[in-house]
Amino acid sequence: MKQALNIGLIGHKFMGKAHSHAYRDLEMFFEIDHHLVCHTLCGMEDDLEEAAERYGFLHTTRDWKSVVENPEIDVIDICTPDKFHKEIAIEAAKHGKHVICEKPLCLNYQEAREMYSAVKANGVHHLCNFTYRGLPAIKLARQLIESGKIGEIYHFRGFYFQDFSLSPDFPFVWRMDKELAGAGIIGDKGAHVVDLARYLAGEIQEVCCQSAVFVKERKAAESGEKKTVTTSDAAVFLARFENGALGNFEVSNMSAGRKNALLFEITGSKGAIRFDLERLNELEVYFDEEEEEVKGFRKIHVTESCHNLVSHWWPSGHNLGWEHTFIHQIYGLVHAIETGTENESNFYDGMACQQVLDAAALSDQKHSWIAVNEIGGV
Amino acid sequence: MKQALNIGLIGHKFMGKAHSHAYRDLEMFFEIDHHLVCHTLCGMEDDLEEAAERYGFLHTTRDWKSVVENPEIDVIDICTPDKFHKEIAIEAAKHGKHVICEKPLCLNYQEAREMYSAVKANGVHHLCNFTYRGLPAIKLARQLIESGKIGEIYHFRGFYFQDFSLSPDFPFVWRMDKELAGAGIIGDKGAHVVDLARYLAGEIQEVCCQSAVFVKERKAAESGEKKTVTTSDAAVFLARFENGALGNFEVSNMSAGRKNALLFEITGSKGAIRFDLERLNELEVYFDEEEEEVKGFRKIHVTESCHNLVSHWWPSGHNLGWEHTFIHQIYGLVHAIETGTENESNFYDGMACQQVLDAAALSDQKHSWIAVNEIGGV
Amino acid sequence: MKQALNIGLIGHKFMGKAHSHAYRDLEMFFEIDHHLVCHTLCGMEDDLEEAAERYGFLHTTRDWKSVVENPEIDVIDICTPDKFHKEIAIEAAKHGKHVICEKPLCLNYQEAREMYSAVKANGVHHLCNFTYRGLPAIKLARQLIESGKIGEIYHFRGFYFQDFSLSPDFPFVWRMDKELAGAGIIGDKGAHVVDLARYLAGEIQEVCCQSAVFVKERKAAESGEKKTVTTSDAAVFLARFENGALGNFEVSNMSAGRKNALLFEITGSKGAIRFDLERLNELEVYFDEEEEEVKGFRKIHVTESCHNLVSHWWPSGHNLGWEHTFIHQIYGLVHAIETGTENESNFYDGMACQQVLDAAALSDQKHSWIAVNEIGGV
Amino acid sequence: MKQALNIGLIGHKFMGKAHSHAYRDLEMFFEIDHHLVCHTLCGMEDDLEEAAERYGFLHTTRDWKSVVENPEIDVIDICTPDKFHKEIAIEAAKHGKHVICEKPLCLNYQEAREMYSAVKANGVHHLCNFTYRGLPAIKLARQLIESGKIGEIYHFRGFYFQDFSLSPDFPFVWRMDKELAGAGIIGDKGAHVVDLARYLAGEIQEVCCQSAVFVKERKAAESGEKKTVTTSDAAVFLARFENGALGNFEVSNMSAGRKNALLFEITGSKGAIRFDLERLNELEVYFDEEEEEVKGFRKIHVTESCHNLVSHWWPSGHNLGWEHTFIHQIYGLVHAIETGTENESNFYDGMACQQVLDAAALSDQKHSWIAVNEIGGV
Repeated sequence: MKQALNIGLIGHKFMGKAHSHAYRDLEMFFEIDHHLVCHTLCGMEDDLEEAAERYGFLHTTRDWKSVVENPEIDVIDICTPDKFHKEIAIEAAKHGKHVICEKPLCLNYQEAREMYSAVKANGVHHLCNFTYRGLPAIKLARQLIESGKIGEIYHFRGFYFQDFSLSPDFPFVWRMDKELAGAGIIGDKGAHVVDLARYLAGEIQEVCCQSAVFVKERKAAESGEKKTVTTSDAAVFLARFENGALGNFEVSNMSAGRKNALLFEITGSKGAIRFDLERLNELEVYFDEEEEEVKGFRKIHVTESCHNLVSHWWPSGHNLGWEHTFIHQIYGLVHAIETGTENESNFYDGMACQQVLDAAALSDQKHSWIAVNEIGGV
Repeated sequence: MKQALNIGLIGHKFMGKAHSHAYRDLEMFFEIDHHLVCHTLCGMEDDLEEAAERYGFLHTTRDWKSVVENPEIDVIDICTPDKFHKEIAIEAAKHGKHVICEKPLCLNYQEAREMYSAVKANGVHHLCNFTYRGLPAIKLARQLIESGKIGEIYHFRGFYFQDFSLSPDFPFVWRMDKELAGAGIIGDKGAHVVDLARYLAGEIQEVCCQSAVFVKERKAAESGEKKTVTTSDAAVFLARFENGALGNFEVSNMSAGRKNALLFEITGSKGAIRFDLERLNELEVYFDEEEEEVKGFRKIHVTESCHNLVSHWWPSGHNLGWEHTFIHQIYGLVHAIETGTENESNFYDGMACQQVLDAAALSDQKHSWIAVNEIGGV
Repeated sequence: MKQALNIGLIGHKFMGKAHSHAYRDLEMFFEIDHHLVCHTLCGMEDDLEEAAERYGFLHTTRDWKSVVENPEIDVIDICTPDKFHKEIAIEAAKHGKHVICEKPLCLNYQEAREMYSAVKANGVHHLCNFTYRGLPAIKLARQLIESGKIGEIYHFRGFYFQDFSLSPDFPFVWRMDKELAGAGIIGDKGAHVVDLARYLAGEIQEVCCQSAVFVKERKAAESGEKKTVTTSDAAVFLARFENGALGNFEVSNMSAGRKNALLFEITGSKGAIRFDLERLNELEVYFDEEEEEVKGFRKIHVTESCHNLVSHWWPSGHNLGWEHTFIHQIYGLVHAIETGTENESNFYDGMACQQVLDAAALSDQKHSWIAVNEIGGV
Repeated sequence: MKQALNIGLIGHKFMGKAHSHAYRDLEMFFEIDHHLVCHTLCGMEDDLEEAAERYGFLHTTRDWKSVVENPEIDVIDICTPDKFHKEIAIEAAKHGKHVICEKPLCLNYQEAREMYSAVKANGVHHLCNFTYRGLPAIKLARQLIESGKIGEIYHFRGFYFQDFSLSPDFPFVWRMDKELAGAGIIGDKGAHVVDLARYLAGEIQEVCCQSAVFVKERKAAESGEKKTVTTSDAAVFLARFENGALGNFEVSNMSAGRKNALLFEITGSKGAIRFDLERLNELEVYFDEEEEEVKGFRKIHVTESCHNLVSHWWPSGHNLGWEHTFIHQIYGLVHAIETGTENESNFYDGMACQQVLDAAALSDQKHSWIAVNEIGGV
């Protein structure tokens, strides 16, 4: 009989649902030594109990501290708005819980340092869920780069485009209020792109950012009251990597026609790699060391059993979906817990990413280049 | 407290796993009146108990009759090799169970008629799982055709290509033995394509088929013994639809570079639709009644909440995977049971599909055109 | 001072224009020993003189025999409606002229045999202009196949789709009258596809064809009179190649959304090749003998100096257009004349192609398989 | 009998060849009132006479002043290295010649102002050949934007990637020497992208650029001597447009796998447009004001007679090549001369483009944002 690994999940909306699903499915496809138990779901909304039933949680509470303090619980999973991440994570670590935290890790680099210190000090395992690291295509990209097949990196172009707020009739939501949303799109979408940049192309040294608000006023959904938008609709930033590569980053919530386009192109001295989240089972790869006549970008359907993580699922050629990334990420954490090793995509990554995002935000504000190491702690 | 709907699943390999996953996830995303219970898993292999634990079944047995006769069980789900479909389904129907059967429904049209008679006679609900009907993109295709936006259908081109047996070193497997595999690739891959043709373009009147064996002998996996391949590696067939449309069908297990390419293109008097299972979240659509200068195939990312079934899952732009089709199909059956309505993709469809496949096989054998209605029952 | 090679061009419409352009540009990009002279343009329409001036011809005539008999003229280029091809070509050959003839070579295999006999008997050079053989991408496809990189051929799928007559309001034109148009779409579009099949995949043994008329009556452009369409809008045909490969051919003038889509996919035991004329500078290629993780179709931009014919044009990466194929084909003929060698794409090819097309037409009529060698001469 | 328009072409290498071809073909496809005469070819290389014969020029000279002064010549076409543009153009204008000048117009904004003053003062027509304005796809993009179908512009992303110097073994060439090459890649590739940005999205207010040299030393082709590369291999720059749009520009000669990828994506409040020069006959367009279920990027094959300039060429669906852009651009100038109107893509555009490029170069040097109007004349 396997031992239980009891999960306390704080936050039950979009991310809470995605994480709950991961707990539900993980053991059907992956071998782990524990049995994952959806122990307690914590949230503030009226539909908490309904969600708990639907997601399969045994208990509910509206008091996150009681979850963190509950001796039965082994893992605290934080899917709340960003501004609560820090306090919960640190308390969880202090109580010796392993901690999962959705990206971005927190509101700024200073917070991130505190969080990272707390998990280190308490010797718990920690996952900052940059969920796209869980894609087989991204794993393949990393493997190709590490094996040297792309050569020295010259260019990283990373974009994240959606168009959900394109219409001026799209209502004012809390993400458009700087008081509530913190770094806004730079922190939200930017975190995914910067993390992939770090994961695949290396550390970033310097950035220069500009953002834009295209629709300055929107009506509140219910009251119809006109409100001033104080966060950005989009941002572009240049970067220089420590290895000398040129970075080109862009994020937008108003890029017409793009539904969920997290795109990147990494080029090096020996090849190139392209990816688009709208086609998340594919990776495009170019090798320059081919015979001259047959050089070209190849589209790899990353669904073969030889590809990372794929053999756990279905036979060759069967597409995975977006939600599988969560299963892979949580599997990574559980595996680290069970083997006493360190998982990828941890709080250090969350902190390092936050430093770049803070630099971008400061650069936007100062209208100048900012070195990442200008962003300090304490 | 919801009433249980107890499932008896017969077969626990590839399809058994996919169906089990559907039972596990369905209630987290869809509202149904019952609670689905994975009651009994039946199979013949040594790993039955391990599979049952992994999939979440309460009981196991090696005797399918005991499942069919068990009064606690409400639904019999058949994921066995094709040759057992008929007997199990008919027995299940006789015991008043609703029946789910993987495609192809059975070995031939005669069997299909008997199965269809049995479910009708016993008044049970029935699903022949042509799983790709469960894709939002396919639902959109159907909706566009039904709304008249494609006009009168002129062309249906439907292909299903893989390349798993491309290498002559790929071993002899049971599917290559005519005694065991029945209609072979025409029945296996052909069933998916013919079902989509019927679902989207209408009934088929006449077919003309030729098949091929490209590698005539292969070595058995263990013994290394050379064996003669007696089923086809590939087949092409022409068809005429009742509405006058031209049909072009092709299936292959040795089409280099194709991993899971179920492709179709339907063109009509007002537009066209294209689909590729390797990009299952997309549909390409052309409308001829656009302004001249901007006519062109558009790629629709079928992941918006306005698209069929999508709102049950994630926000806009988040890809679904292959396995979601099973959830949608089983949801359809449960919904039919609960509302006393008839679900799509039922045994009638399985039977009608089988008639076309039998005609294709006969045409291949006779090297001539065969009218579908030449394929008769007793 | 280079010697003149005097051209007599018969027909000055679409193809006449394309050939004239080839004569104009050839010497700017290719080294030949002669100077090409647009000597005489022959046609029947009022705008003959205007065309001659525009195309750069020195003389005009409405009497094709005078062109064929003119001792100054070295090459007769036939761009007339198909039914005049035979007589002109044979007369030209008898007068010792080299002959260029647009595809299809003529109306049927019997005519083709006579034409081929005439050019052989008179020892003149001959080009049947299957113009797409002149594409660098097609040359690359051939080179890959010949080098064995695709292995033994298993599948040839070749389609030619347009949609110019999609609308029922598209008027009745001469091509819709069987008396005038001969083999109709099978001969017109089919000739291109069958030639590429022969060029790339080998000889065809047997075919089975069905055609369709989707709009049975159309109005004459000027009179508005309703007329019955007696040629096909579309046709599909199966084929078996001599090497055992399965052939799948389709042609349509009413395939919505397709503007000029001559498509093929050739798959073999070691790889596959795909092509689409709408992207004529590209070839997609798959090699199965790659490392497992990075297998995939690659898109080759066939515009590098290492690619056949490309170095005559522009630096790397600069697209060629449709019209360049004519220059390449005529260059091939001139080169053959100057070196006394045999050019590709000659009357033998025209004849062999015609035999397959005749078999397809007969198969369509008889509603049965027809062996290509059943189509005989006298 | 048409009057001659005599051309004096200075420079006979890559661009000289492309322009010569345009003169050769223009009258075959476009109606103009004059007859274009390739009068004099001027160049410095040994193969001048051979080129003149091949291109069809009547005279040659090594003295450009004699061309500019020749009273027989009507149009001076400048295809020399950039550093000679200014002097020749101004002399030509002073002698009352119409002037064609390849892009970039010259070495810097100051020169550009002088050139623009000269053509204005002398009342001659002038073309700065931003050749991609001559593409039907680009004309369609402009038409859609002008008609309001894309709405207010929010994003312009424009990239020009090649990979010809990817290999460290690619030799040192004059373009890598700052003394000879001026603005280097920013001027060369950047000019095309910035011109399209201005043509389609409006004027640029401010830029921030960084460049990179990835291979710092290369061997000279003949001597094998190691030389330091003093121009950039790549550059990225941010921009703000006057209309508030965010600009993202990138150019590289070392972007692996890209052969001639001039790419842009323009998004606005109502739609988006994408283009890739490697598929120059296509434009991808998204309209947000479609029915929800069928929104998506459509691929338009810009080869219909309804599309700008296409009707001069071939029937529907027949691809044009890269070289056609030159014909269209020169046709634009001739048409302007003949009608006394102003052509697009003139010296004003060359000058305005240069101002942005100078700002980018200065920004790169100063490592800070630069307002375009900081770049001044005199």
